[in-house]
Amino acid sequence: MTDIEAVQETTGRRSREGRGAAARRASRSGGGAGPQQSYITRRIREYEVLDEEGLTLIEANADLVLEEIGIEFRDDAEALALWKAAGADVRGERVHFPKGLCRDLLKSAPPVFTWHARNPARSVEIGGKATVFAPVYGPPFVRDLEGNRRYATIEDFRNFVKLAYMAPSMHSSGGTVCEPVDVPVNKRHLDMVYSHIKYSDKPFMGSVTAPERAEDTVAMAKLVFGDDFVENNCVTLNLINANSPMVFDETMVGALKVYARHNQACVISPFILSGAMSPVTVAGTLTQILAEVLAGAAFTQLIRKGAPVLFGTFAASISMQSGAPTFGTPEPSLVSYGAAQLARRLGLPFRTGGSLCASKVPDAQAAHESANTLNMTLLAGTNFVLHAAGWLEGGLVSSYEKFMIDQDQLGMMQKMAEGVDLSENAQALDAIREVGPGSHYLGCAHTQANFQTAFYRSPLADNNSFEQWEVEGQKRIEERANALARSWLDHYEAPPLDAALDEALLAYIAGRKDSMPDAFT
Amino acid sequence: MTDIEAVQETTGRRSREGRGAAARRASRSGGGAGPQQSYITRRIREYEVLDEEGLTLIEANADLVLEEIGIEFRDDAEALALWKAAGADVRGERVHFPKGLCRDLLKSAPPVFTWHARNPARSVEIGGKATVFAPVYGPPFVRDLEGNRRYATIEDFRNFVKLAYMAPSMHSSGGTVCEPVDVPVNKRHLDMVYSHIKYSDKPFMGSVTAPERAEDTVAMAKLVFGDDFVENNCVTLNLINANSPMVFDETMVGALKVYARHNQACVISPFILSGAMSPVTVAGTLTQILAEVLAGAAFTQLIRKGAPVLFGTFAASISMQSGAPTFGTPEPSLVSYGAAQLARRLGLPFRTGGSLCASKVPDAQAAHESANTLNMTLLAGTNFVLHAAGWLEGGLVSSYEKFMIDQDQLGMMQKMAEGVDLSENAQALDAIREVGPGSHYLGCAHTQANFQTAFYRSPLADNNSFEQWEVEGQKRIEERANALARSWLDHYEAPPLDAALDEALLAYIAGRKDSMPDAFT
Repeated sequence: MTDIEAVQETTGRRSREGRGAAARRASRSGGGAGPQQSYITRRIREYEVLDEEGLTLIEANADLVLEEIGIEFRDDAEALALWKAAGADVRGERVHFPKGLCRDLLKSAPPVFTWHARNPARSVEIGGKATVFAPVYGPPFVRDLEGNRRYATIEDFRNFVKLAYMAPSMHSSGGTVCEPVDVPVNKRHLDMVYSHIKYSDKPFMGSVTAPERAEDTVAMAKLVFGDDFVENNCVTLNLINANSPMVFDETMVGALKVYARHNQACVISPFILSGAMSPVTVAGTLTQILAEVLAGAAFTQLIRKGAPVLFGTFAASISMQSGAPTFGTPEPSLVSYGAAQLARRLGLPFRTGGSLCASKVPDAQAAHESANTLNMTLLAGTNFVLHAAGWLEGGLVSSYEKFMIDQDQLGMMQKMAEGVDLSENAQALDAIREVGPGSHYLGCAHTQANFQTAFYRSPLADNNSFEQWEVEGQKRIEERANALARSWLDHYEAPPLDAALDEALLAYIAGRKDSMPDAFT
Repeated sequence: MTDIEAVQETTGRRSREGRGAAARRASRSGGGAGPQQSYITRRIREYEVLDEEGLTLIEANADLVLEEIGIEFRDDAEALALWKAAGADVRGERVHFPKGLCRDLLKSAPPVFTWHARNPARSVEIGGKATVFAPVYGPPFVRDLEGNRRYATIEDFRNFVKLAYMAPSMHSSGGTVCEPVDVPVNKRHLDMVYSHIKYSDKPFMGSVTAPERAEDTVAMAKLVFGDDFVENNCVTLNLINANSPMVFDETMVGALKVYARHNQACVISPFILSGAMSPVTVAGTLTQILAEVLAGAAFTQLIRKGAPVLFGTFAASISMQSGAPTFGTPEPSLVSYGAAQLARRLGLPFRTGGSLCASKVPDAQAAHESANTLNMTLLAGTNFVLHAAGWLEGGLVSSYEKFMIDQDQLGMMQKMAEGVDLSENAQALDAIREVGPGSHYLGCAHTQANFQTAFYRSPLADNNSFEQWEVEGQKRIEERANALARSWLDHYEAPPLDAALDEALLAYIAGRKDSMPDAFT
């Protein structure tokens, strides 16, 4: 019997004998993309691409880069003074690090910490075997539910926060889920932070586009959590990109300093398009990433010993034909796997990956690139996953349809991370005995007892026959995703928010907005 | 700087400073989906989901199934007699295996062997660190290049053989790449085997739908390779599905016996839709798979000691709501990872996975399901990968467009399998020194020297700007795949075939066709 004959025989057998009470009950029960978890605790091991020799080699080369070539901290006299005081060799804006200095400083950084949500049930662990998914970050454009590609608005921003709040496999409502370009550039961070607090109770990220906006984020967080709590706990996670190669600029260092001083977490992320910001090789790229992270992460400890900090890696390549960024290809996956290993050896939580793609529409290109990236992200043992849903067109576009497709895949990763259950029930020897050769398991007692949680159930995949799919209008997955997004937004209910707190937040925002004229660049 | 600002800055920097001679030369050179490899030699490690305790548990449970419940060999007195003589407890058609019997018999099966192609440069290794990709197997329908879903013809069959021959990441032209339903059912195997020999010089698979068709396959192979060579080497790989749960039927056992007697390789593949043919749990499914493979694979050694045999696993689940098969979900991936580990412990080459999906069209659903399956397939350390390209709609359809999209992904897997190069050139310290902080690598000497092979280059992904993509007609990837398939078929050139051999093959086919009336069922 060939594979396909076996499929046909099974289908026939099903229609002859019926599907049993289990399947009928399940079809009535509704179901969805798996249960909401506050975060994932991986029970599967990490995949590794470097052996001890390779890791030692990269580490030695990174030490050499730090000492010989150095890292620039630009336009920040305080940073340079702090490095000098810590024992670094500062020449102009270039900091040269004696071997071991950064690693010694990082001994005070916590390997695991809690990122608190305003709803304590939604707080997440960062580090160790925990994995946390957060939405796309940064796009100025959206692809909306009417099929238009246009500039994003604050209404889009609220919608993506709502979708992230409702997605059972999303653990954070993220940060800049899209750029609300209809709000002045110097005030939109206030509306963004407010939207995260108002429309979601999952943990959120802070503004990093200017030190004063970081201060606003902390001030608003203090209204929610209280002053003392914020100063002693992590309530925002903040994306600090290195300006690769080997530069930290004024804006990012400014935001880093604010957050580290208030004990908030920084994600030090070399932003790498290999071939442009790093060498065209995996080993060379890893060397540079490690050097940049060591310098940036160690700097947080100069600001405040014990401040939480992540080893971040944004890895893509460029097309050597056109110069355009490419995603989901093998080389950045190897970079991210290797970086995850380096982060574990350093004892820092790790960020990489997501559902990255270059495609302009949520087609098979988008899905292949996203899936290649996302499967790697999980197996690498990534602790914090930005861009986990909604990323389209190299990060220029937040797509509603892609968000829905991606969050379904995140549900699969959540299930995959549970690994193999070896309990007596899972061994199923009684089921094998009961059914025996030549029969089937559709209605057996073990199936009846386990069917509801046995398999991940996609709310978007169409597994029906061609004939049924044809009758139902030959829909592609993005049409089903569009309908699901509309349905979620129609059924959205805000999590409870204390009225006095809401008023205080709005008053703070009004005060800050009144204090300065609108700026649009 | 946020991720997206960094993308924008790079793009801007590129347009300001140009892309350098390297990129210009590359854009002139054409390029494609990577170089043709006869097969993949993986330099990356295998991913594992079971520890020693889990593996020992599954093995003990499988032994218990073999001894206590047994496996049926139906309608084959010879098989039952052979098992009795080997020491099994045969009751009716049910064979009960004393602990260790199957494992002892399998000690004579080779852990690695060569599957010979008529072009020796295309011969492949099966086992160890080798991975071999082969196309979809079995669909009665095609989705053609005009967008029609219709029954497959021998012309389609030839086209898929041609595409597999031309695909640089395809290592075999496969077997039943589609069912040529315009040829009588009792004669089409002759045209299929001939097409593989005529239109490709990569290794091919044999017919398994009846013992006499297996004999025809061997007879035609002997015309190509010579009688002695065939009897002492593997020149066909043959798909023997178990009729799970725990049955081998007359047809499959009949084909197995022919091939094993002639020293040809059998792939013993439990065909599992968990919840229908096996328990709904991963551990229960693995137990049953191991028991079935142990019985079927050991049987090949009763037919001919030393005959090559593979541990096969076709793993999917069913929707507990509709009963329909589902693909690319977490549970079958865990099954396949675990089965790969069990195969390695048994010392047998392993087959699983491919580019499986349930979608009716090559959309994001098809791609996510295929990519989830394919990434697992590579990392599991799979030796032989059937259905690696072209599979659509649960295996009912061979799709030209999906074939092209999938083969591009196979090229990525081929590159991924190379792992991390740690040579002095790859370490790129001179490049990091040359470029230094704040500059870029686009034109540096190291990039110039390495850009041609640095990154996998997809022939189908569109990485251009939105504006350029819009000007070029807003094409989805399946439109580009359609054009590429047409271009390949237009430019196809057959590999040389000795005229006398061609005549002998055609004469053999004519003789066989004349010897029996057409049959259509």
